[in-house]
Amino acid sequence: MSDTAVADRARILVSCPDRPGVVAAISQFLYGMNANIVRMDQYSTDPDGGRLFMRVEFDLPHLSDRRRELEEGFARTARPLDMQGEIRYARERKRIAIFVSKMDHCLRELLWQWQAGDLSGDPVVVISNHPDLREVAATFGLPFYHVPVTRETKAEAERRQLEILKNYRVDLVVLARYMQILSTEFVSAYPNRIINIHHSFLPAFVGANPYERAYERGVKLIGATAHYVTANLDEGPIIEQDVQRVNHRDSVEDLKRIGRHIERVVLARAVAWHLEDRILTYKNKTVVFV
Amino acid sequence: MSDTAVADRARILVSCPDRPGVVAAISQFLYGMNANIVRMDQYSTDPDGGRLFMRVEFDLPHLSDRRRELEEGFARTARPLDMQGEIRYARERKRIAIFVSKMDHCLRELLWQWQAGDLSGDPVVVISNHPDLREVAATFGLPFYHVPVTRETKAEAERRQLEILKNYRVDLVVLARYMQILSTEFVSAYPNRIINIHHSFLPAFVGANPYERAYERGVKLIGATAHYVTANLDEGPIIEQDVQRVNHRDSVEDLKRIGRHIERVVLARAVAWHLEDRILTYKNKTVVFV
Amino acid sequence: MSDTAVADRARILVSCPDRPGVVAAISQFLYGMNANIVRMDQYSTDPDGGRLFMRVEFDLPHLSDRRRELEEGFARTARPLDMQGEIRYARERKRIAIFVSKMDHCLRELLWQWQAGDLSGDPVVVISNHPDLREVAATFGLPFYHVPVTRETKAEAERRQLEILKNYRVDLVVLARYMQILSTEFVSAYPNRIINIHHSFLPAFVGANPYERAYERGVKLIGATAHYVTANLDEGPIIEQDVQRVNHRDSVEDLKRIGRHIERVVLARAVAWHLEDRILTYKNKTVVFV
Amino acid sequence: MSDTAVADRARILVSCPDRPGVVAAISQFLYGMNANIVRMDQYSTDPDGGRLFMRVEFDLPHLSDRRRELEEGFARTARPLDMQGEIRYARERKRIAIFVSKMDHCLRELLWQWQAGDLSGDPVVVISNHPDLREVAATFGLPFYHVPVTRETKAEAERRQLEILKNYRVDLVVLARYMQILSTEFVSAYPNRIINIHHSFLPAFVGANPYERAYERGVKLIGATAHYVTANLDEGPIIEQDVQRVNHRDSVEDLKRIGRHIERVVLARAVAWHLEDRILTYKNKTVVFV
Repeated sequence: MSDTAVADRARILVSCPDRPGVVAAISQFLYGMNANIVRMDQYSTDPDGGRLFMRVEFDLPHLSDRRRELEEGFARTARPLDMQGEIRYARERKRIAIFVSKMDHCLRELLWQWQAGDLSGDPVVVISNHPDLREVAATFGLPFYHVPVTRETKAEAERRQLEILKNYRVDLVVLARYMQILSTEFVSAYPNRIINIHHSFLPAFVGANPYERAYERGVKLIGATAHYVTANLDEGPIIEQDVQRVNHRDSVEDLKRIGRHIERVVLARAVAWHLEDRILTYKNKTVVFV
Repeated sequence: MSDTAVADRARILVSCPDRPGVVAAISQFLYGMNANIVRMDQYSTDPDGGRLFMRVEFDLPHLSDRRRELEEGFARTARPLDMQGEIRYARERKRIAIFVSKMDHCLRELLWQWQAGDLSGDPVVVISNHPDLREVAATFGLPFYHVPVTRETKAEAERRQLEILKNYRVDLVVLARYMQILSTEFVSAYPNRIINIHHSFLPAFVGANPYERAYERGVKLIGATAHYVTANLDEGPIIEQDVQRVNHRDSVEDLKRIGRHIERVVLARAVAWHLEDRILTYKNKTVVFV
Repeated sequence: MSDTAVADRARILVSCPDRPGVVAAISQFLYGMNANIVRMDQYSTDPDGGRLFMRVEFDLPHLSDRRRELEEGFARTARPLDMQGEIRYARERKRIAIFVSKMDHCLRELLWQWQAGDLSGDPVVVISNHPDLREVAATFGLPFYHVPVTRETKAEAERRQLEILKNYRVDLVVLARYMQILSTEFVSAYPNRIINIHHSFLPAFVGANPYERAYERGVKLIGATAHYVTANLDEGPIIEQDVQRVNHRDSVEDLKRIGRHIERVVLARAVAWHLEDRILTYKNKTVVFV
Repeated sequence: MSDTAVADRARILVSCPDRPGVVAAISQFLYGMNANIVRMDQYSTDPDGGRLFMRVEFDLPHLSDRRRELEEGFARTARPLDMQGEIRYARERKRIAIFVSKMDHCLRELLWQWQAGDLSGDPVVVISNHPDLREVAATFGLPFYHVPVTRETKAEAERRQLEILKNYRVDLVVLARYMQILSTEFVSAYPNRIINIHHSFLPAFVGANPYERAYERGVKLIGATAHYVTANLDEGPIIEQDVQRVNHRDSVEDLKRIGRHIERVVLARAVAWHLEDRILTYKNKTVVFV
């Protein structure tokens, strides 16, 4: 899209009790603003008294001058229908921190897609508990912070990390094969804003060494799972999963190599969807409007 | 769904010039009727002055008593916005004629899914240019008409077929590996209501003997294509396609066997979508809201 | 293949300590018999001192007159190399018992592929703990035994089932959504000759109600697993797995419907491979030469 | 594998008239050398008098001292059976020239996989008709040659390119979205040693602008094809193909973006297989032992 087009584009995300009139109220409101709906997606958990989720993407001419009008109007529309909603502006690109350890494939895929113009957000900082990937970050012109983590220094390290996130005004944290478990405190600072890539088709092989265990079990497909991070390890809402076929000839090393490919694809998809405000969550599940 | 649920469900399909207010008008109208929107899908070919397609699925309490009210109200809503639209009632299950020749796999898949309750329409008659599959039809309690076709008798045969379709009040014709080309006259009697399964990934291997040609060319995937039939053979709007991996060990016979599997899957998906009013067409393409 | 071709075809399956000379010994032996190798597959768990698996498919002119010569020659070849091996004759089609409960999709898929000539074995009997599918069996001309199973009668029921298997000289038992757990005694009577279809991507959702649990967990793919049955429920060697994409709109009922499709495909593949002697097992894993 | 392991590993590729004794002869010969067969694949186009293809991967202790013995022995074995065969040594890593124009995704994927240790060959030079990707090559420490091509200078440019290939002792040419057609002379200098990635599922959309045409035709899957380059454009033996699902929402730009992903995956697979000597060709088709 051209810059002008981006400047006028916004999205409304809504979650509310399902009842007649929700769609009408939102679309009437937008029509009254003279906005043009580009795409509208709606999902009801249960037509008879469940919860309704909606995403409306629209163009509003001269949006930058009309944000206050838009926000106040939306608040008035949302209140009587108990909507929890947010307006997101395409021009406000999300700022991303990428956490890594030693493996570079997920980091590279994200940076590469960013460079190719395929991401509608911007990596702004790379944080790692190891120094190894400093140069990769440098190649893409990104600052790199080496924050070592040991059992003893973990609390202090997380304080340091949160400080960096704050300094860089980070909107989204991506754990791109970051081999550390985050504390509940850390996670709660970025609810539904930390995406992890787990190297298995969850809930199969929850926990450590999934490829070794997949090999032992003799599975015929291996997979990867991108999910939001919650206090319960490997239990957060799943955003995306994919698998690839393997066979008896594949060693653990082969599974890891094949897995690297799935991991980067799955993580990149999840990150792209988050950046485009396509994901809503409820009951530890995601609604993804793709 | 329960019978009551089905009785109250309807869908509005709309195609119109894209302009602000279309979504608002439809949703406001439905809200005024006290309908509950179950699902709304919308697609604009081009946000700046293209064409808008919309499908709204909704429940309207006591629908059977309010059809006239619904239809008149929708007509009033549609007119000022140049909408071409239709209301479809879930309770009015579409009536299907299945055309076959000698191969039974597509026929069986459809009848089987029907029997399993997976289709929201009903096969009512099987028509064939060969007598071979009479018994299959009989097993499922369906009338079977053997209408032989030769070059000389083709016009007469089509008259006979159209008569049968009329007698059975057929809404949808499915060519389930019917190895005859229909005349332009026949096709124009059922616009966008004849679905064919072509045994290749169109536009690769247009025409006859696609598996032989796929074998000769040494392709690594073979596929199938379900499309609406138009006057131009193999050129109608594509509804669904899928492929499966093959390799050098697969003979032409193997490709055909593998192909049979893809064909029945792809055809059954396309038929199900048609029956659920999920498909709109424009410019020889389909919009499929799945 | 023609009947003559089938009459002359055999397969040797070998498992032995990996050492130089195994392939040479087998191929030299077959050459000495004037057999023509149609296909040879070989797999070593570890080139440095692991285990070697081999499958050789060959044509031996006038095979029926030379079986004793073949078997004795093979025994002489196998002994010095510590081979565990078997000769299987394509003409000796395996006899299959299909166990079902109430769901018919896996049964129908198998019978249908059999009828289409796609299986190189023959269902000879259907056994069920419910009477519901008697007619399906009858349609395909198969005897149907209703053997009810309760906690109290289980031992007796299994005795009855084993008797039926013996009477019909069954080579392979297929659990086509048979919702009963077999005893260790039963399983040990048919080692690596009982194939089960589990309705999840094992080891995810081991146990009961996998679709409900997949729905709760919000997975984005659902799958099915065909495996040999061992004494440990859901833990036997995996033969084949596949998955299909689902999303937040899919209810538990949808997952089950989609699942039915994957289940029948995955089970039919596993059965076909078993019938063609393509599967060897070791360490609770399978080697599948496809 | 360790360096020692690589040093002792070799592969024999054979193509010959299919007759009894071929497998026995090769395996007997290798056994006589005290080689250990790691993997053997064999394919006969037709068991009754067709052509046989074989790939044997083996470890021969102290291989570097025994190459002459191996080669002479193999020649003696091959002659009486009319084998066309070659011995390839794992330690002799193939040297790759990558041709590009302006798009970098295929180049990056190859270089990245190389850097990750996933390729068993080595890019040694990048050649382009545009200067744009010089820096990418530099990042990976590779020399970059800008050889502009116009209709008038094409012959001269190809001479220059061939000279570069010779200077760098190139074994394999990869056209990684190189948007120029090579002359018959050029192609014949590297028979079955030039791999191209075509941005469609061939033979669909042969020729220029495949994504635009896929969009116009409304296909539901888009694909990519890696093939050896022959004198007939887009007609060479297909090595690998894959597809990805698209829908009506995807613009031509989206198709290109999605296509970039498939292209790099498909090309990288084909290149890896070539480097591991897994591909044989006949009758404009490939036998790929994966």
